[in-house]
Amino acid sequence: MPGSRDDTLFGRIADGLAQAIRSGALTSGERLPSVRELARRHGVSLSTAVQALRTLEDARLVQARPRSGYFVAPRPRALPRPAESSPPRESLLVERSTLAQFVLAKEADPAVTSFGLAYPGADLFDHTLLRKAVMRAAQRQGASLLHGAPGIGVEPLRRAIARHLLRLGSTVAPEGIVITHGTLEAVTLALRAVTQPGDVVAVESPSYAGLLHILEQLGLRALEIPTCPSEGLSLSALELALRTQPVKALLCVPTLSNPTGACMAQTRRQRLVRLLSTHGVPLVEDVVWNDLTETDAQRRTVHSHDAGGGTLLCGSFTKTLAPGLRLGFVATGRWHARIQGMKLATSGGQTAVMEYALADLLAQRGLEAHYRRLRQRIGARMDETRELIARHFPAGTRVTDPAGGYLLWLELPGQVDTLALLRHSLAEGICFAPGAMFSASDRFDHCLRLAVGANWDTRRRAALARIGALATRMGSG
Amino acid sequence: MPGSRDDTLFGRIADGLAQAIRSGALTSGERLPSVRELARRHGVSLSTAVQALRTLEDARLVQARPRSGYFVAPRPRALPRPAESSPPRESLLVERSTLAQFVLAKEADPAVTSFGLAYPGADLFDHTLLRKAVMRAAQRQGASLLHGAPGIGVEPLRRAIARHLLRLGSTVAPEGIVITHGTLEAVTLALRAVTQPGDVVAVESPSYAGLLHILEQLGLRALEIPTCPSEGLSLSALELALRTQPVKALLCVPTLSNPTGACMAQTRRQRLVRLLSTHGVPLVEDVVWNDLTETDAQRRTVHSHDAGGGTLLCGSFTKTLAPGLRLGFVATGRWHARIQGMKLATSGGQTAVMEYALADLLAQRGLEAHYRRLRQRIGARMDETRELIARHFPAGTRVTDPAGGYLLWLELPGQVDTLALLRHSLAEGICFAPGAMFSASDRFDHCLRLAVGANWDTRRRAALARIGALATRMGSG
Repeated sequence: MPGSRDDTLFGRIADGLAQAIRSGALTSGERLPSVRELARRHGVSLSTAVQALRTLEDARLVQARPRSGYFVAPRPRALPRPAESSPPRESLLVERSTLAQFVLAKEADPAVTSFGLAYPGADLFDHTLLRKAVMRAAQRQGASLLHGAPGIGVEPLRRAIARHLLRLGSTVAPEGIVITHGTLEAVTLALRAVTQPGDVVAVESPSYAGLLHILEQLGLRALEIPTCPSEGLSLSALELALRTQPVKALLCVPTLSNPTGACMAQTRRQRLVRLLSTHGVPLVEDVVWNDLTETDAQRRTVHSHDAGGGTLLCGSFTKTLAPGLRLGFVATGRWHARIQGMKLATSGGQTAVMEYALADLLAQRGLEAHYRRLRQRIGARMDETRELIARHFPAGTRVTDPAGGYLLWLELPGQVDTLALLRHSLAEGICFAPGAMFSASDRFDHCLRLAVGANWDTRRRAALARIGALATRMGSG
Repeated sequence: MPGSRDDTLFGRIADGLAQAIRSGALTSGERLPSVRELARRHGVSLSTAVQALRTLEDARLVQARPRSGYFVAPRPRALPRPAESSPPRESLLVERSTLAQFVLAKEADPAVTSFGLAYPGADLFDHTLLRKAVMRAAQRQGASLLHGAPGIGVEPLRRAIARHLLRLGSTVAPEGIVITHGTLEAVTLALRAVTQPGDVVAVESPSYAGLLHILEQLGLRALEIPTCPSEGLSLSALELALRTQPVKALLCVPTLSNPTGACMAQTRRQRLVRLLSTHGVPLVEDVVWNDLTETDAQRRTVHSHDAGGGTLLCGSFTKTLAPGLRLGFVATGRWHARIQGMKLATSGGQTAVMEYALADLLAQRGLEAHYRRLRQRIGARMDETRELIARHFPAGTRVTDPAGGYLLWLELPGQVDTLALLRHSLAEGICFAPGAMFSASDRFDHCLRLAVGANWDTRRRAALARIGALATRMGSG
């Protein structure tokens, strides 16, 4: 069980070793301490030590060799990473919907090979489980198909989500959860609860296009905070912003931020909570990616550190469990009445049968095994993508190396304009998300995001190489 | 088939007779012309004449007596009707969400007997059909549960809705339809396509609270147009408004308007189209109630008269077919690209399995029979409610007599404050929708809407009588 003592222990041990490997202190091919040695050194049981090593194995950081022990796995070729961003200091009204809609329309064309949409491919899932859960729900809860009254979600699903949040370290009562139409509605409700049109909202830089779209729709101003592509939000920059600007909320994806994949360390999350609490600024925390990280420590929410109740948790299961279910949630905290009212008045609620189906899915054994398989298959895909980037993209291309998920953020050398690159790519039937989508400013016009979750095949590999070739040609032209 | 020559003929004959009955030209117990006589008089076939009489029978306006022919049915007790409204002449920002959320929260309490929500009761449906359609869709289209990419709706559903709109006289291509999260999202997208925040939108007065809530959310100003509770929008008042104010769109429910149940005559719909076209003002037409009217003529959309393409059609099946499915649509006309883009960027689309299930339902034979049964059972409930109002509400209470649906709009005498009445009622566990919810002004503070679609039983009858008693006490206090 997550949250149990042992679990925390093996997670902490795994984290220490993972850091040693990622930093290069332990190098490829090197032998790890034995199970017995690890257990002794950390004062834990043998099974806890085994769990720690298996966690690293899942994360593709170590390999088990029969009767020899665990060894550091060969690392993918090292690529330079993007540096911390330096967005403008003033808040901006977001005007990116025309671009986002253009890219989305291209994505929708089945003839296009797309790296633009952050959805996992059907080849990563077995839809039998899902289908059976829906059929069972229709069979048992068919009468709910006649229930037209607005609602905040059926109780079994709100309970299942409360249990799910325990895995992320957050304790939330089922009564404190409102079921939504995916994460985007969850974030919209959360932001509406704590802001008025015209208010300033601090965001990461770069920031997920969908979140910026919400700011645009709500007439909110985006204040982009300098963000490190691996460590996340700069806390000192945020502190300065909170001191000098009328920030009304922080909207943030602390685990596997989109597009960079940054994960904030837990100590930084604690500092973040103190900082926001000092300034009385609420946090809207998007946890949609948390199940795709490798360790329990990375998975843990900022919300779990926040005893003051200043955090609204938003998430869904579209990235990890049921892409087509379109169900999300917001843990509403002290804004419950307000958000419940807005949800009832705005959209009337979700389809109850689907809510029952998701509750059923979340209660199934084998969910952990599903997440692990998913992470492993995605991890292999990401390694291959990084190899292709190293081989085909212009020298000097910087790329992130996230601890999970299927998004890569690239910074092209020589200020190659990625909107122009997109036009060239689209002419050859290839789409990606240009950097301009991820900011209200023009700071990322030479960047792009590649989503490699979709079905993986030769055509996609060739298309990736082709984007690289086009970028190389543009850079040298 | 709707639209066929015969169909139009029998509908027209039925309409003429219905008008004669409703106006009192034909009185209760009077014998109608025989089938043969009707056929001769209108120059139609015998079967067309029979269809016309059966239509009137469905509408509870005539009764068949074996071997004697058709007779005008006994009419429910006549009650005075509310007069045309006289809203303020200036446009107003809507600020009603606090009230709407208060009422919605009360509705959600299962201990409360509610006349507030405009949803049909489960006792009006057989959920077996629905359940089977969902199970079939999950079985056959289970793979779609993994399809995470944003979409405007699966093609079979868009095709089924195009066919459905043919029944309402509207010809729309499946490619011109976007599937939405119920009617509210459809109207939201339609209004966003044709307005900017701060713009003026003309609406009926009174107007459905959910529509006003959308205006409030989008920062639009409501210009309420004088409206007759039986004939609908005053066209002369609308014309004046179009001439003198910067109206950017008309938002209207021409068939069974909510809350009054008004139905615009088809000739007035034609005039409306000309008027809007002259001023270049688009119409957002909500057709959610059209299947609950008695005649094809009433069912026909304004859109069907609009050759100029100035109408956006919005609807859903929550009132008539599948209250819990939460699927709606907007026929986007020349705004398709814009609305498609907004839909993809905002909410990512609906659950495909449910879309397949609804497409399946809409293709089933027996749908017409379902609608007819629904209308008959609702009609009986409405008659009984009007009887209870005549018996228990204060003398001088005015009440609408709509040609279908399950909403009644009441005007209490002596300026009884219906918010105060609601407080008294809630103290006894009874809820209704106070008039203030249906306007941005204070013109309807002595009005209320009763929705009598929900499961009908002794408790509900007693609760209705109790509201009347409380109103009587307040009026004489």
